[in-house]
Amino acid sequence: MPMGAEDDAARAKRMRSRMELLYPICRSITGDGVRQTLDVIGESLRPGLELRRRAVPSGTAAYDWTVNDEWNVRDAWIADPTGRRVVDFQEHNLHLVSYSVPVRARMSMDELRPHLHTLPEHPDWIPYRTTYYQRTWGFCLAQRQLEAMGEGPFDVVVDTTLRPGELTYGELVIPGESAEEVLFTSHVCHPSLANDNLSGIVVALEVARAVAALPWRRFSYRFVFAPGTIGSITWLSRNRPLLDRIRHGLVLTGLGGPGPLVYKRTRRGDRTIDRAATHVVSRRGGEVRDYSPYGYDERQFNAIGFDLPVGRLSRTPHGEFPEYHTSADDLDFVKDGELLDAHAALMRIVEILENDAAYLNLSPHGEPQLGKRGLYPTTGGKSASDAVMAMLWTLGYSDGCATLLDIADRADLDFAQVCSAATDLAGAGLLERASEPPRR
Amino acid sequence: MPMGAEDDAARAKRMRSRMELLYPICRSITGDGVRQTLDVIGESLRPGLELRRRAVPSGTAAYDWTVNDEWNVRDAWIADPTGRRVVDFQEHNLHLVSYSVPVRARMSMDELRPHLHTLPEHPDWIPYRTTYYQRTWGFCLAQRQLEAMGEGPFDVVVDTTLRPGELTYGELVIPGESAEEVLFTSHVCHPSLANDNLSGIVVALEVARAVAALPWRRFSYRFVFAPGTIGSITWLSRNRPLLDRIRHGLVLTGLGGPGPLVYKRTRRGDRTIDRAATHVVSRRGGEVRDYSPYGYDERQFNAIGFDLPVGRLSRTPHGEFPEYHTSADDLDFVKDGELLDAHAALMRIVEILENDAAYLNLSPHGEPQLGKRGLYPTTGGKSASDAVMAMLWTLGYSDGCATLLDIADRADLDFAQVCSAATDLAGAGLLERASEPPRR
Amino acid sequence: MPMGAEDDAARAKRMRSRMELLYPICRSITGDGVRQTLDVIGESLRPGLELRRRAVPSGTAAYDWTVNDEWNVRDAWIADPTGRRVVDFQEHNLHLVSYSVPVRARMSMDELRPHLHTLPEHPDWIPYRTTYYQRTWGFCLAQRQLEAMGEGPFDVVVDTTLRPGELTYGELVIPGESAEEVLFTSHVCHPSLANDNLSGIVVALEVARAVAALPWRRFSYRFVFAPGTIGSITWLSRNRPLLDRIRHGLVLTGLGGPGPLVYKRTRRGDRTIDRAATHVVSRRGGEVRDYSPYGYDERQFNAIGFDLPVGRLSRTPHGEFPEYHTSADDLDFVKDGELLDAHAALMRIVEILENDAAYLNLSPHGEPQLGKRGLYPTTGGKSASDAVMAMLWTLGYSDGCATLLDIADRADLDFAQVCSAATDLAGAGLLERASEPPRR
Repeated sequence: MPMGAEDDAARAKRMRSRMELLYPICRSITGDGVRQTLDVIGESLRPGLELRRRAVPSGTAAYDWTVNDEWNVRDAWIADPTGRRVVDFQEHNLHLVSYSVPVRARMSMDELRPHLHTLPEHPDWIPYRTTYYQRTWGFCLAQRQLEAMGEGPFDVVVDTTLRPGELTYGELVIPGESAEEVLFTSHVCHPSLANDNLSGIVVALEVARAVAALPWRRFSYRFVFAPGTIGSITWLSRNRPLLDRIRHGLVLTGLGGPGPLVYKRTRRGDRTIDRAATHVVSRRGGEVRDYSPYGYDERQFNAIGFDLPVGRLSRTPHGEFPEYHTSADDLDFVKDGELLDAHAALMRIVEILENDAAYLNLSPHGEPQLGKRGLYPTTGGKSASDAVMAMLWTLGYSDGCATLLDIADRADLDFAQVCSAATDLAGAGLLERASEPPRR
Repeated sequence: MPMGAEDDAARAKRMRSRMELLYPICRSITGDGVRQTLDVIGESLRPGLELRRRAVPSGTAAYDWTVNDEWNVRDAWIADPTGRRVVDFQEHNLHLVSYSVPVRARMSMDELRPHLHTLPEHPDWIPYRTTYYQRTWGFCLAQRQLEAMGEGPFDVVVDTTLRPGELTYGELVIPGESAEEVLFTSHVCHPSLANDNLSGIVVALEVARAVAALPWRRFSYRFVFAPGTIGSITWLSRNRPLLDRIRHGLVLTGLGGPGPLVYKRTRRGDRTIDRAATHVVSRRGGEVRDYSPYGYDERQFNAIGFDLPVGRLSRTPHGEFPEYHTSADDLDFVKDGELLDAHAALMRIVEILENDAAYLNLSPHGEPQLGKRGLYPTTGGKSASDAVMAMLWTLGYSDGCATLLDIADRADLDFAQVCSAATDLAGAGLLERASEPPRR
Repeated sequence: MPMGAEDDAARAKRMRSRMELLYPICRSITGDGVRQTLDVIGESLRPGLELRRRAVPSGTAAYDWTVNDEWNVRDAWIADPTGRRVVDFQEHNLHLVSYSVPVRARMSMDELRPHLHTLPEHPDWIPYRTTYYQRTWGFCLAQRQLEAMGEGPFDVVVDTTLRPGELTYGELVIPGESAEEVLFTSHVCHPSLANDNLSGIVVALEVARAVAALPWRRFSYRFVFAPGTIGSITWLSRNRPLLDRIRHGLVLTGLGGPGPLVYKRTRRGDRTIDRAATHVVSRRGGEVRDYSPYGYDERQFNAIGFDLPVGRLSRTPHGEFPEYHTSADDLDFVKDGELLDAHAALMRIVEILENDAAYLNLSPHGEPQLGKRGLYPTTGGKSASDAVMAMLWTLGYSDGCATLLDIADRADLDFAQVCSAATDLAGAGLLERASEPPRR
């Protein structure tokens, strides 16, 4: 399966320019920022692909949750007695705690202080804080800013609106031969944080592009761009009949930061996506971890009531790098090489999902004579090549039950090598396709 | 479940004073010493608890064994030609080989020597030896004593009786809601050895005290104080109908010596007691070992014909510390801190046996909104606390099959944390108790 | 079971003298060399044992393969312009590529060079090459020889015949109580290579000698001496009804070279032969490896269509020692001590195959009183001996399902110790044989 020989430089450039468009937008779990984000996503699709946007009214029930009022910001600042804005939302989205309620007041530092959030251990960084479900307000600022603010009194303005509106998400579907689906999701609720999660968004878009370019697809592919938690729960609540068709899924986030790839298993831990991602990630030097019920939207997809086979791909996960949820997670923090590597790994995973199957050795009585079919070196006495070894493993284990991925794992060979050996052997009449891997 | 906030100092004092009462008694597998030991045990129980004493006549068959004649000692010594007692049972119980037959003779060193046992590598220690099933006699002494004895001739007196009597053991039962039982056993046949097994006896008594103080008990608890091997086999032979009701059990011995806690698994190795004890002991830095058919009475309970779920808790096991079966295993060898730690570990094990159960997540479609129930921090963006994590794990895996212990092990959390999370979640209507763990 | 106290020195001498007879013979997969090899093998058997020789005509189909034409060599050389033979088959069998077609020509170095094979990294060694299935010719020589050859022109003579004949193999069967068989195979196609595989041949002969000397055999034993690949496939094709009777098997090769014993598992990896060989090899400090579909004839026996329980015993395997398939694999490369050690290990494996069985503890209610049967030390208080421990393990796990090998592995004891304990316990009426291990 040719997996796209597209130029990495062009891909990196597309991802970078999309991140630059998305970075300045003030996103939260609802509001204009989400719609603008979906605009950018929609406009970056190839002709023929369409992002379908969904709007769910505030107050709509979604299982144990209710869609929030919509939040939008016009402006927000803190001004000192001279009228100078010492903290200014216009300078950085993170300065305003997400979902802050409107305020217009003059207050002393003593009154203001409980509403200010800093990171004393990183005095130049602005933290990221939210207050989705408690109606209060606050500002986030660098510790150095705080120390230079003086005693006030301060004019505090939070010019936001918080009223019935909608929660918005977008979906892109690329149909395949089967109605069964592979699901990729990326959260679109974090403002001005590049690794978390512009990286996930732009890698997902490149996977969509490459998948759409495949000459044939076993599965249909669905890419969901939704706010975290309430967005994915709302999506789940509105797509019950679809859920049975999801065969494999991945949450994509934090793919451009430092560290090797980290695959987080599904809750059950033994789904096909777990095996495919483990094969790819571990062979690229990455790390595989067990599920835990904390993190991103995988916790919703894996909840007992859904139990979907959705893992998560990232690099160093949330909370394990100091820049996490701070202004230091900016466009420089995300590297093109890391994004490209994540994309390549995802396409290897897609390759497995598309091509894994069990085969039957049609010449099972001893090793077939590969030489007379031109598949074996003619001078004996030397060691076998990788290609010959891949054929021998494939013949040796293709009993109609073991799949190519089983064989690749056992042989410690790349899936692609075993897949290629199977193609050659089937071409020589020595192997025939038996069945798809069991649904898992 | 409140597990007793009793004062450790008071507990240590009780254990120490009981050991001081028990240490001088000359115990063996039968005789006055066993009865005196059971007297001390019975007198140390709280009002309302009663030690029931059982007497089994010599000659009674117990499977492949027969209850021995009863053995008692009036006196025993070796005197040198001047009449001075160079080895004197009055000075230390260990000087006389247990079950020595009566002797009254004058003999040379050459005649006497085959009856003398020393430890050349520990020249000041007296070894412990027995001859339950061969009618002979002997003395144990320090190597230095032997070297100072001279050539004799010696007057040798073993003033013992060995005649039909009884084997004695004691039982304490604390009833619970169910007739199913948790069994704790400690051997009471070793004379003047503190770790082996006064430590097991006094820790068992404190566990009984704490269990009796519980406001409610799922299980009934049985504490058996019996001589080793013949005592436990006799007990088994006389309690066949009871055996089916034993759900969990532990042999308690060697709990006051050096080293971390060591749990020895049951023969099958996968019983509930194995999982509970492994959870507790490994989280306290202790060690877990597989079963072997050598050791204390666990070898009887685990014999194929009984196959009871009885593990063993000790510290450094028999034979692995030099003081084992010598006079150096004295009251100083046993430390209060080690006894208290063993008691605490046992109460954690009891806590698991009493409280482990499977629960059902009543809000399984995605993560329930803990915040609106006051169970989640209201300012988002920071990491989750241990208490929140315990709730997320409990919700994430409570499918009606996984028990709290399963979840605690998977999450690498203390059982108590998960148990507390389950209580909070059940209180909030998010969880309901599904079933007890399978009988195992 | 006494396993032969025959003198190791005599055994080593027999193996050495057979290797000296076999080494000079020019063997290939067919031809006079194979027949001469089978002559030597047949003549070295004890009276009463007979090597049955089988001849299969060229052109006979064997599954996906066809028996080759028979190949024989009269002479082969390369002579320089002075008539001096610079490469001479008379000096070393390896000089001629096996299955070279006849040639008689004068040619320049440029024309000759593509037919010459050397090992530049080992300039004094002659490599071993074959061309069984492509009709060409070649010479193998030391790099230094090549460098000294000059520019020619050369007279090249390959005086071989390649025409319809037969493929020959030999079989030795030693009957036992059951018609079920243990199979040992060694390939007999390699010329003048000592470790690969004179070592396998002579060790197999000594195993046959020792097995024939056993007073009783549970199984029948079959030793097959056949050319590699085409030989074993031909044997398999002509013995279909027999295959169901093969309970255990081993390919023997490379047993006299350096390194510890290496057992290569069957394809399934959990057959009885895998457990028996793992027990023996790992307790002797050897190594156990998973199956891979590359190596010697185990790849034919384990092919999906046969799926026979045939592992492989060697030392450092093919391709992992530099002397492999070169003239440096000569009689000095093979050491007597290694051959004897391999033979001893094989007889331990035979001991397990012959004697493993499940037993039933007839006194399962607690530990039986070994002392009254003279099986236990009478003075208590000390640690148990190995012999006592073997009895306790055997009693503790003999539930009619666990076999002696299961128990030995669990107890980390030698099978022989557990087997001896079972004999003693059965003699005391405490144990009875329950069943043979499951067919696996």
